[in-house]
Amino acid sequence: MRKPYLLFLGDVTEFSAAKTAAGLKQWRRDDVVGQHRLPGSGVDLELTDMTPAQAAQAGAGTMIVGVVNIGGFVPEHWVGTIVDALDSGLDVAAGMHQRLNDIPAIAAARERTGRAVHDLRQPTRGFAPGNGRKRTGKRLLTVGTDCSVGKKYTALALEAGLRARGIDADFCATGQTGIMISGRGVAIDAVVADFISGAAEWLSPDADPDHWHVVEGQGSLFHPAYAGVTLGLIHGSQPDALVVCHEPVRTHLLGFDYKVPDLRRCIDANVTAARLTNPDARVVGISVNTSRMDPASVAAAVREIEAQTGLPCCDPIRHGVDRILDVLLN
Amino acid sequence: MRKPYLLFLGDVTEFSAAKTAAGLKQWRRDDVVGQHRLPGSGVDLELTDMTPAQAAQAGAGTMIVGVVNIGGFVPEHWVGTIVDALDSGLDVAAGMHQRLNDIPAIAAARERTGRAVHDLRQPTRGFAPGNGRKRTGKRLLTVGTDCSVGKKYTALALEAGLRARGIDADFCATGQTGIMISGRGVAIDAVVADFISGAAEWLSPDADPDHWHVVEGQGSLFHPAYAGVTLGLIHGSQPDALVVCHEPVRTHLLGFDYKVPDLRRCIDANVTAARLTNPDARVVGISVNTSRMDPASVAAAVREIEAQTGLPCCDPIRHGVDRILDVLLN
Repeated sequence: MRKPYLLFLGDVTEFSAAKTAAGLKQWRRDDVVGQHRLPGSGVDLELTDMTPAQAAQAGAGTMIVGVVNIGGFVPEHWVGTIVDALDSGLDVAAGMHQRLNDIPAIAAARERTGRAVHDLRQPTRGFAPGNGRKRTGKRLLTVGTDCSVGKKYTALALEAGLRARGIDADFCATGQTGIMISGRGVAIDAVVADFISGAAEWLSPDADPDHWHVVEGQGSLFHPAYAGVTLGLIHGSQPDALVVCHEPVRTHLLGFDYKVPDLRRCIDANVTAARLTNPDARVVGISVNTSRMDPASVAAAVREIEAQTGLPCCDPIRHGVDRILDVLLN
Repeated sequence: MRKPYLLFLGDVTEFSAAKTAAGLKQWRRDDVVGQHRLPGSGVDLELTDMTPAQAAQAGAGTMIVGVVNIGGFVPEHWVGTIVDALDSGLDVAAGMHQRLNDIPAIAAARERTGRAVHDLRQPTRGFAPGNGRKRTGKRLLTVGTDCSVGKKYTALALEAGLRARGIDADFCATGQTGIMISGRGVAIDAVVADFISGAAEWLSPDADPDHWHVVEGQGSLFHPAYAGVTLGLIHGSQPDALVVCHEPVRTHLLGFDYKVPDLRRCIDANVTAARLTNPDARVVGISVNTSRMDPASVAAAVREIEAQTGLPCCDPIRHGVDRILDVLLN
């Protein structure tokens, strides 16, 4: 994708819906020139607001649709903005289930302008079903009590932390944002269901004995819509180590009338699932997202989780991930 | 699909690979005129062997590719036979992941002959992600310790048994064979992973309070390749009742170096999974496939399973499913 990027936030009103844009800002800040929001937007990433034309003048190469929604469709009233971006000379990239290239007005603008339209969620290759055979090298998978709870962020922080300690490690993206950040991966939720585990096996192939594949988790085993994706990803990843991601103040799954599972129960379910394909799987830490918590209450919450689970607990943004790495590497 | 059918068995050597053809013979015997086998075939369904031309002369309307394989691809050396069938005046239907219509020689023959080529595994509509909301009516789902263990057969037998007792019931097909038998359904393993639960929710919509949707299960929670499909199907089906299907003499998952799970553990895992979306879910019986057992040993095996699980156990072919229905309806 041509850098730098303009991040399109549409008119989403929840910060969690802008997680693709937020992830790019966090991990690829130097590649981002600004944000573009529609009237009614309730999210501000504290980037310079600019139109596609202004971004093109500022040197932007690609407008990235930086939002996610349930079902992954492109709202009709965003199409005009995407066409504008192409007409302004920008490429456009998105990670929706619905392909931008399948929308006639966008396809027509692509042809007219000669610009590129990237549908990053679409698998670009076929996969075989999983075979369940043990692979060489080591693997860590982030799992969680819900969606949008820090699984990608935690995996990227663990990759960085391992590398800082001189250990060979690679982040394996399983969602559109991770693919945009790292430049490779597979949107595991867009694979045909029969091939979830197979795609996950492909993603972290045989490697040197001391190499760590750090795999971005998806969904939650306790999610009524997405648990199948989560389970297939666990089985195909064959993780030696799991890190459970959690937001302490969240009581219900985002957008669903389902309670967030108890952390202890979530740990047990994930370890049980992982041991099908890797009998040595264990949880090495809890990663908490404390961004919506009163800072004064964080330390007590972390202590409580550590007492409950017997595992190191940290917020990667607030505390780093060193304590989890200490357990992982011990 | 135009009846009657010629069942194409290719050159598969294992009976389990011919399960689509076997299911059609079992449940739609009057619609089947014969079988067509290639040199090297090791399977005989005890139907009249005939070529596509002979079948056309005998009045056949459609040749059905009646086999399954891992990955769902069409072996190249079968293409000639499929073209022959079209040239003989037959339509062709298959339930592979790979679309017959995408194979140039088959597409060319379809155009040349004006015959129909049905790819029954391809979803013919889009789905939304699951929403997890409780639906009206009652649902039974068959689950199992492995693939190819009797989940479809058991569901069809339970549908027939419920109807024989005057109870409103509908079989819900989730695989290509079930779709061919019942004429509707969704091949749940061919849906995009994000929509497994949503497709399962669509399959058994709101119904009358006393109506039973009898949903065909897929895969196994203990299968390294397919457990994600199984879990999403469980969550989306919201079963009130589960029947666990099992082959007592099978020690390892078909084609995999994984042990068949202990029946008690399998029951617990499926109930735990099902209770996420239906807290009242319970197992009402064990359905065993005893076709490969010494008949003299069946009674003892059934008694042992009943003692171990406290549930009625029967082979639908050998014993019927009345004892399971008694528990279900009590």
